[in-house]
Formats: sequence, structure tokens, C-alpha cells
Amino acid sequence: MSDQTGDYLKRAKAGDVRALAKLLTALENEGPACLKRHPELLSPPNAAFRLGLTGPPGAGKSTLIGQLITRLRAKGLRVGILAVDPSSPFTQGAILGDRIRYTEHFSDEGVFIRSLGSRGSLGGLSSSAYLMVRAFDVAKFDVVLLETVGVGQTELEIMNVADLVAVTLVPESGDSIQAMKAGLLEIADLFVVNKGDRPGADAFVRELEAALHLDPRAPATPIPIVKTTATSGDGVDALVAKIEEERAGSEWKKKRASLERLKAEAKSLLRQKAEREIDARVSTVASANEFAQLFD
Amino acid sequence: MSDQTGDYLKRAKAGDVRALAKLLTALENEGPACLKRHPELLSPPNAAFRLGLTGPPGAGKSTLIGQLITRLRAKGLRVGILAVDPSSPFTQGAILGDRIRYTEHFSDEGVFIRSLGSRGSLGGLSSSAYLMVRAFDVAKFDVVLLETVGVGQTELEIMNVADLVAVTLVPESGDSIQAMKAGLLEIADLFVVNKGDRPGADAFVRELEAALHLDPRAPATPIPIVKTTATSGDGVDALVAKIEEERAGSEWKKKRASLERLKAEAKSLLRQKAEREIDARVSTVASANEFAQLFD
Repeated sequence: MSDQTGDYLKRAKAGDVRALAKLLTALENEGPACLKRHPELLSPPNAAFRLGLTGPPGAGKSTLIGQLITRLRAKGLRVGILAVDPSSPFTQGAILGDRIRYTEHFSDEGVFIRSLGSRGSLGGLSSSAYLMVRAFDVAKFDVVLLETVGVGQTELEIMNVADLVAVTLVPESGDSIQAMKAGLLEIADLFVVNKGDRPGADAFVRELEAALHLDPRAPATPIPIVKTTATSGDGVDALVAKIEEERAGSEWKKKRASLERLKAEAKSLLRQKAEREIDARVSTVASANEFAQLFD
Repeated sequence: MSDQTGDYLKRAKAGDVRALAKLLTALENEGPACLKRHPELLSPPNAAFRLGLTGPPGAGKSTLIGQLITRLRAKGLRVGILAVDPSSPFTQGAILGDRIRYTEHFSDEGVFIRSLGSRGSLGGLSSSAYLMVRAFDVAKFDVVLLETVGVGQTELEIMNVADLVAVTLVPESGDSIQAMKAGLLEIADLFVVNKGDRPGADAFVRELEAALHLDPRAPATPIPIVKTTATSGDGVDALVAKIEEERAGSEWKKKRASLERLKAEAKSLLRQKAEREIDARVSTVASANEFAQLFD
């Protein structure tokens, strides 16, 4: 199995997207052990910039991603998409049909989409996601878009994987306060207020600014807010500019190489490995006595 | 250490509450291994009925527990309290001072309170809670009240520990629908609508009944709803009657002895054991190379 993975790695590195597809599946099956077997995955020669997009269901994240793909492709960048949201239309390939296919920049080699369920029974980010983003690095992609649905543990973990976390909200009364409560403030590097053509959108942006200003947890430098209308494309250029500005810098590479990041990733990978082992072990228990034997 | 735990066990069984206090601490330190070392913990000769009380902060759970203690003590029952809610006033002993001390039935031996934080970093019920309820069994308590705050993983896990789960709500518009969303329906054996003296309380009870009736996940036999006003004690007798009715039956003993329960408990205990080991292991990582070594 390991040799085959090595073969997929080599071919994915040379630009073969079919091999990349197989590589992602192989990594999912192999689990974290692949990091030791394949040093290239551990320290990839290339780093794809990872944009995490999170937010409540219905905030228009998928439509926004469709717009981002079009624009990033127009710049000649190779874009990978990992949809960790099980309700994402990417799962059905809808966006691919709706928005990507007709752009003049679309090509098989330039856009690669993979959806994966959040596997951990405790609700964390699938350990496969941690491995797959590394595959996109090896395969020389420029940008990886990570789509998650903004509730719970997965969104906290996206911080450990993404280089820039964009929290997508819609202009609805009370939403900004909800965002604070849900802990989204702690993970947001950037807020995207989508559906910006709705009445009250500007008021919502001001309300969010005020809420951010008042929150004691907010950083000294205000978190940027970008207003978009994903359906028409309005404001998406400003979002792309933010991404490109960040990507041109070196901060994200430093952050990614930090020991803190590695440790967070290690914990998540090991926990999910342990969880699978425990589930398998416990499933065989058939009596109270066997139950006690588990705790040697 | 194990011998000392055995000594505490023996003394707690003989009614020594100071030994029980030490036993609980010893179990916390020893972890699940104690189940193998001390067969009495694994299959206790006595079973204390476990009432899980969960619900949003501010629903009046602690005041309600104060009232329950008074009434259960009046029946001569020994009552243990495990407060898993870190914001519970039991942590500060406030209820003990406010409500219990003056009752004629209060005695050191009859009421035992322990608060513990929810330890698992992934938000599950502390593995100590699983062990501590068994200690109350051994110490021949009649009832254990488990207080948790109604958000997240802890409340799902309370199902695996409690014999009867009472979800406490307050009459506020939209609360019943929120309860469904938060998954409280799946865990509720009983709803307590507290603050029943508020205007709109009766309307809220009807709204909740209707919501339960309409929900496709609701069981065929309607989930009972008890309206209480914990501050005055109104309705608490009806709640006690429900507890006593359930406790007199044998269903809860069957459920507790089921393999399904044991397996759920085993998974939780092993996960938290693994989590501690992983945290310790990862904390020593000092380079990307050492990181890879974790995944042998």
C-alpha cells in the first residue's frame, strides 16, 4: 500500500490530477502513519495557501467559493477545494456545474474538488483533512479553500489547518452577537458579510464593527470586514485582494511551521487514531467482566 | 495507592462520609484502572438511582436540586449530588447554606455534595463522573443527582450515566423549539418547566406539549412535563413523585446493566484516558521530525 501511495505522490507532484485523487483516498485509508512513511508529506517542498471559510449554513459559502475559484483561476492559480461541510453542494458537484464549467479559465488541472464528511464522532475536523491539505502542497497547488459549516469543534480546529480564516455571516439582526457567542471571534482573521445587497447590510456591518470594538477579546488591530454579494460577484474582488495580500507575506509560513501548530495537529491526529482503535476494541465487549478487562 | 483506595471503599461502604470524600478523590486520580482493581466498583451491591438534571444556565437547576434534597431527605433517603456544571453554586456551597442547613432532616451523613469540572478537552462528561457515581452505589446512597449545564457533549453523555434525565426549561418564547434543536428531546425522559409562576408559563407548557407531539422523533408515549417553581417549592412534590415512581420500578436497573450502557461508558472512559496520554506525549514534541515519530 505504501509503495502505491509513493507512486501517487510522485505523479501528483508532476501535475497528474488523477493520481492526486487516488492519493487523497490512499491517505484517508492509511491515516497519519503516511506522515512518517513519506517525508515529502511531512515537509512539502511547496506550500499552498489555505483559506478556511466557515460560517452558518445558508450564509452562501459555496456560492462565494464558486466566485473565488473563478477569480483565482483568472490569475493562473491552481485551486484545491476541501469541503468538510456534509451539506455542501460541492458534494454533489453542483457548483462545478453551475459556476465553474463555463468560465474560460476552467481546466481539469487547475481546479480540484474533494468533499469529506467530518468523521470524528466527537465532532472534530476529520483527521483526513489534515493529511489532504498536505497532499495539495505536494501537488503544487497555490491555494486551498477549506469549507466548513460554522458550528462546533470543527470550526475551532480549522484554525490549526487554515492560514487565514474567513468567517462568513449574513446581515440578520442579532447575528453579530451570536457570532461572538459561538466563539467565531476567536477564530476569525477576516469577516465576510455576504448577501450584501440585502436591506440593512450596511447597518449590519457597522453593528459588527461596533461589537468587535467593544469585545475585550478582540485584537488591537481591528479584524477586517469585507462585504460581498456572492450571487452577483460584488465585493469578491476585495476579498481576493485580501487573500493575495496575505499570501504575498511570510507570516502564514512562519505560523504554519510553528511548534504550536504541529502540536495541535498531532493531538488531533492521534486522538482520532485512538478513537478508531477504541471503537473497534469496545465493539467486541460482551459482558461486564470483559468490560473491566479494558482498563488494564 | 490501590490498597488505600480499597480501605476508603470499605469505610465508605460502612457509612463513613469522610472516607467517601477521599475515595472520590482517589478515583479521580486513579482513573478507570480502579474498575479492575476493585470488583465492588464494577458490580456494586447497591444501586443509587441517578437523576440527571440538565438544562440551560439560569433555568434554576440548583434551586430545584435544593428543594429535591429537602424532600428526599424527608423520606429518609441518602442523597449524593455531583455538580458537573462549573458555574453551579454548589461549587461554592451556596445552596448548602441557603436551603439545606435549616431543614430538620439535614445531617452530614445524609447529603454529600461534590462538584467537578467537565475535564475532557473535547467537552465530554468527565471520566471521573462515571467512576464517582459508582462510589455512591458502594456507599449505599439511595439517590444521586447529577447536575449538568445543558449545552453540548456533556448532556448527550449524561444519558449513559443517569437513570432518568430531567431537562429543565424556563417559560420563554421560542425555548421549546430551541430545546428540540439542541437535541434535548433525544435525552429527555421528563421535562421540568421551572419558574412556573411567570406569566405565560401555562402557555409555554402547552406550546412544549404541541412541539413534542409534532416532532417525529418523539416517542409514542408522551414525555411527561412537570411545572415547578423552585423558589417557592410549588410543583416539586410532583417531580419527587415521578422520581419515586421510576425508582420503584425495575426498568432502570435493567437499562443500567445493559451491554449498550457498558459500551458507551467504556468508550468514554477509554477516550479520556487516551486523551490524557496523547496530551502528555505531544507536549514533549520539539521538532517536525519528532512530530513524525508520533505516528508509528
